Amino acid sequence: MTVAVYLPAQDKTQWWVEMLQGLLPGWDIAAIDEIEDPSAVKHAVVWRPRAGDMARFPNLEVIVSIGAGIDHVLADPELPKGVPIIRTVGDDLTQRMREYVALHVLRHHRDMPRQLQAQAEKDWHAIVVPVAPNRVVGVMGLGNLGAAAAKTLAGLGFAARGWSKSGKDIEGVETFAGADGMDAFLSGCEILVNLLPLTDSTKGILNADLFGKLPKGACVINCARGGHLVDGDLIAALESGQIKQATLDVFHQEPLPADNAFWANSAITVTPHVASQIDAATGGRLIAANLKIFAETGTCPDMADAARGY
Amino acid sequence: MTVAVYLPAQDKTQWWVEMLQGLLPGWDIAAIDEIEDPSAVKHAVVWRPRAGDMARFPNLEVIVSIGAGIDHVLADPELPKGVPIIRTVGDDLTQRMREYVALHVLRHHRDMPRQLQAQAEKDWHAIVVPVAPNRVVGVMGLGNLGAAAAKTLAGLGFAARGWSKSGKDIEGVETFAGADGMDAFLSGCEILVNLLPLTDSTKGILNADLFGKLPKGACVINCARGGHLVDGDLIAALESGQIKQATLDVFHQEPLPADNAFWANSAITVTPHVASQIDAATGGRLIAANLKIFAETGTCPDMADAARGY
Repeated sequence: MTVAVYLPAQDKTQWWVEMLQGLLPGWDIAAIDEIEDPSAVKHAVVWRPRAGDMARFPNLEVIVSIGAGIDHVLADPELPKGVPIIRTVGDDLTQRMREYVALHVLRHHRDMPRQLQAQAEKDWHAIVVPVAPNRVVGVMGLGNLGAAAAKTLAGLGFAARGWSKSGKDIEGVETFAGADGMDAFLSGCEILVNLLPLTDSTKGILNADLFGKLPKGACVINCARGGHLVDGDLIAALESGQIKQATLDVFHQEPLPADNAFWANSAITVTPHVASQIDAATGGRLIAANLKIFAETGTCPDMADAARGY
Repeated sequence: MTVAVYLPAQDKTQWWVEMLQGLLPGWDIAAIDEIEDPSAVKHAVVWRPRAGDMARFPNLEVIVSIGAGIDHVLADPELPKGVPIIRTVGDDLTQRMREYVALHVLRHHRDMPRQLQAQAEKDWHAIVVPVAPNRVVGVMGLGNLGAAAAKTLAGLGFAARGWSKSGKDIEGVETFAGADGMDAFLSGCEILVNLLPLTDSTKGILNADLFGKLPKGACVINCARGGHLVDGDLIAALESGQIKQATLDVFHQEPLPADNAFWANSAITVTPHVASQIDAATGGRLIAANLKIFAETGTCPDMADAARGY
């Protein structure tokens, strides 16, 4: 019984192999490209596996995503049908996302980009902004991360809203549900945070149509997946002033290529997919624990729903 | 009975006069330099009054500070003894300070200055930081604003500490008191927020000695008063690396002169005394309400203690 490990960076793969060997003594753990007997592989631990990687293992029982999303696993056109997928979620990931969302909502709320520009010009210019209870901020997607983010924003005093496909009650947060609730959710929403899972129905959801339903001058924060955003629509909305500022943590291609126009756009803050970065030590502990649970019970509380896409 | 109004900017003084006239119909409200009968002045509403301004009014019953601090009133060497001072505090001021402290602690916590530098260099460089529960942040001064700030930081998940002269219990915050507790408070404190009142005993408290008791590479946020900071000691501590970054909202001279070295220091974020900026509409309502209470009862819940200095 072998655990096959893959991450796009070879040195990271090796690092994860050694860490999992330390955490799962007695288990056979190997980098995916060094597997000698594919039929012995029952578990795979992966981030952005290559097309066909999983199909090589005829006895694969479970795939562990090194991250909360499973879109990077489902993206494999040759993915074997019916192999269950475990997500890696945990208090640390949720905590880090809360921090990121709070930081970037506050940055836009208090207009730090313009304040830093004033400093660069040695300009003692006080920017007057509404107090948080008069600022409407909305979170799209109310899973573990989105619900925690919305609660955190409410705790900071914001007029917090949340939207999800099927509806969810969160204390202190005004929630909206489904296609019918979307326009009301977006109306008046001055700072929008995207934390939706990436699925066929949410792909490209951050587009000109959606931006047009926000109030003029709204800010957008995307800390879910690059595939949610129609890049050209954002650039156009920033140029027209419909969107004032954006913070992007995720991109269609990562690392973001050096020639991508986002880097140098003064209305865009680029962060390198760090919103809820899994630190390897924490991720390793969570994954080792989940593999043990799965090996013993055949299931795990962090199981994803491949049909649903998250 | 006249209310004398003074702010350093003449147009602001006029604006406040008109606003208070609207809020206190029937009261005689006038700019301090347009008072014809000084003996009729019973109330003064001021921000940074000039030396001798208050001494001109022999029948002055109360001074209202347009702000939470009263140091700018006490700074007048000719201030008449025994005239009570009302502070202007309120939910909005506390809320704004919570936002400022949360924003700037999170900025330092997630190392946004370095992250923005990486963006400027089109460098996909993920900065690894501890998760907030493993980050010790401390608030000096646990009055209305400091206590709210410390509670907010705890709510965001930080390992939050607080220090005050006489000690205070705050849920979720480890508190320290008095001179004896200061070293333990500072030890290990990675991000320090100053919200002390400015008094003879706190003047210059942010100095080389204090910086040396913080862990190397700590960040400092001063959103109290410029007089708390020994400017040269901060510059030296930034140069030695003892302090990594600082955010300053308050300065010995405001507006900060264009030739001050703080403006262009890449390790310093300068904001123009906006942490808990009173917006005039809210401040006006608070002040009008307090003047009415004082006129009726001879006291007010927001009375400061001039002997204590805050």
